[in-house]
Amino acid sequence: MKLNDKGLLVVLSGPSGVGKGTVRSALFKLKGHDLVYSVSMTTRKPRSGETHGKDYLFVSREEFEHNIQSGKMLEYAEFVGNYYGTPLDIVEKHLEAGREVVLEIEVQGAEQVRKKMPHAVFIFIAPPSLKDLYNRLEIRGTESAEHIKQRIEKAKREIHMAYKYDYIVVNDTVQNAADKIIAIIRSEHATVKRTLENYKKMLGVK
Amino acid sequence: MKLNDKGLLVVLSGPSGVGKGTVRSALFKLKGHDLVYSVSMTTRKPRSGETHGKDYLFVSREEFEHNIQSGKMLEYAEFVGNYYGTPLDIVEKHLEAGREVVLEIEVQGAEQVRKKMPHAVFIFIAPPSLKDLYNRLEIRGTESAEHIKQRIEKAKREIHMAYKYDYIVVNDTVQNAADKIIAIIRSEHATVKRTLENYKKMLGVK
Repeated sequence: MKLNDKGLLVVLSGPSGVGKGTVRSALFKLKGHDLVYSVSMTTRKPRSGETHGKDYLFVSREEFEHNIQSGKMLEYAEFVGNYYGTPLDIVEKHLEAGREVVLEIEVQGAEQVRKKMPHAVFIFIAPPSLKDLYNRLEIRGTESAEHIKQRIEKAKREIHMAYKYDYIVVNDTVQNAADKIIAIIRSEHATVKRTLENYKKMLGVK
Repeated sequence: MKLNDKGLLVVLSGPSGVGKGTVRSALFKLKGHDLVYSVSMTTRKPRSGETHGKDYLFVSREEFEHNIQSGKMLEYAEFVGNYYGTPLDIVEKHLEAGREVVLEIEVQGAEQVRKKMPHAVFIFIAPPSLKDLYNRLEIRGTESAEHIKQRIEKAKREIHMAYKYDYIVVNDTVQNAADKIIAIIRSEHATVKRTLENYKKMLGVK
C-alpha cells in the first residue's frame, strides 16, 4: 500500500568522474519502479542523431534566459558558452502523477534544487577512494595529468559538501549503487513526514 | 561497501493486533541480512517447552528490579503481575558487532527506547484500516466485543503517537511489510548522519 501518492524528486549528484551517468542507467534498467529521467533544456545546437525532447530540449538563448528570469528553471548552469538546465514545470507534472523524477546533476546544480524543492531526496554518489576517481578520469583519456589533479582537488571540496545531502551511496559497483538507490526511494516513501497525514485521512482518524 | 559498521537498533511497534509478530517472523526469513532478535527478560515462570536464553531470559523479581534500578533495562513493563523487558547490555553487544537488532515492542516501550537510544530506527506497523484491525482481534477469538472496542479506541490513541516515529509501514500483506523494513534498514545505513564521518576517514579527506 502506497501512502504517499506523489512521486519523489531524486537528485543524484557527486564529483565529476564518479560515474553518476552509469549509475543512473543501471537504475533505469531495474524493473517495477515508476522512474522518469528529466530531460535537460539547452541552448547548444543539436548534434547529429540527437532528438528534441529525447536527448535535450533545444531552445534559443532568448527563450532560456526568459525561463531563468521568470523562475521557470529548477536549476541551470552555463558551460562553455551554452546554458544547460532543468525546466520546473515538467518535473512538477511528473511528481503530481506519482512518478519518481531522477535528476543527475553537478554539485552546484544540486544546491539550487535544494532551495526550490527542499523535500527532494539528495543522494551523493561517492567514489570508493580518491585513487579510484583518479583512475576513472585517467581512463577517460580526455584530460591532461594537470587537469586530473585539478579535478581531484575539486572532488575533495565537493566531498566536504556531502553533509548537505540526505544519503551517501558509494559507487563501488554500479549494481550495488543502483540497488541502494531503489531501497532509499522505497524507504523515503514510508517516512512519517511523507505519509502520516494521508494515513490518518485514510483511516478516518482525526 | 558498508560505510556504517555499527548495527542498527530497529524498533517495530504499533497497536495491539496489528500483526507485529508475524511481520517480524517474515523479516527473519529473508536471507542475506544480519538480523538478531533481542530476547526479552521476564519474571514469569517458564511454560512447558520454553528455554532460558531462547524464548526468554527467566529471572527472579529481585534480579529484574535490581536491573531497573541500575539502569540496565532498555525498556520494561509490568503485565499481569510480571515484568517483561529488554536488557541493554545484550543489545549494545550486538550493535557493536554490526548486527541489526530488532525489537518488537508495545508503543509505551518504544517511548522508553527513544529516550535511551535516540539513534534507533522507529517503525510504526500500521493496520490498513480500523476494520481490518477489528477483524484480526475478532478472529483471535480470545476477547469479548466490549474488549475489542476498547482495543480499537486504544489503537486510535496509539496511531496519534505515530508522528514520533521515523517510518510508517502498513501491514497490508506481511511480505510487503517485511520487504519495506529491509529497504528501510538498507537506506538508513546510507544516511549522511550515519556514514559521513567514516567516509571522510576512509578517503583521508579532513
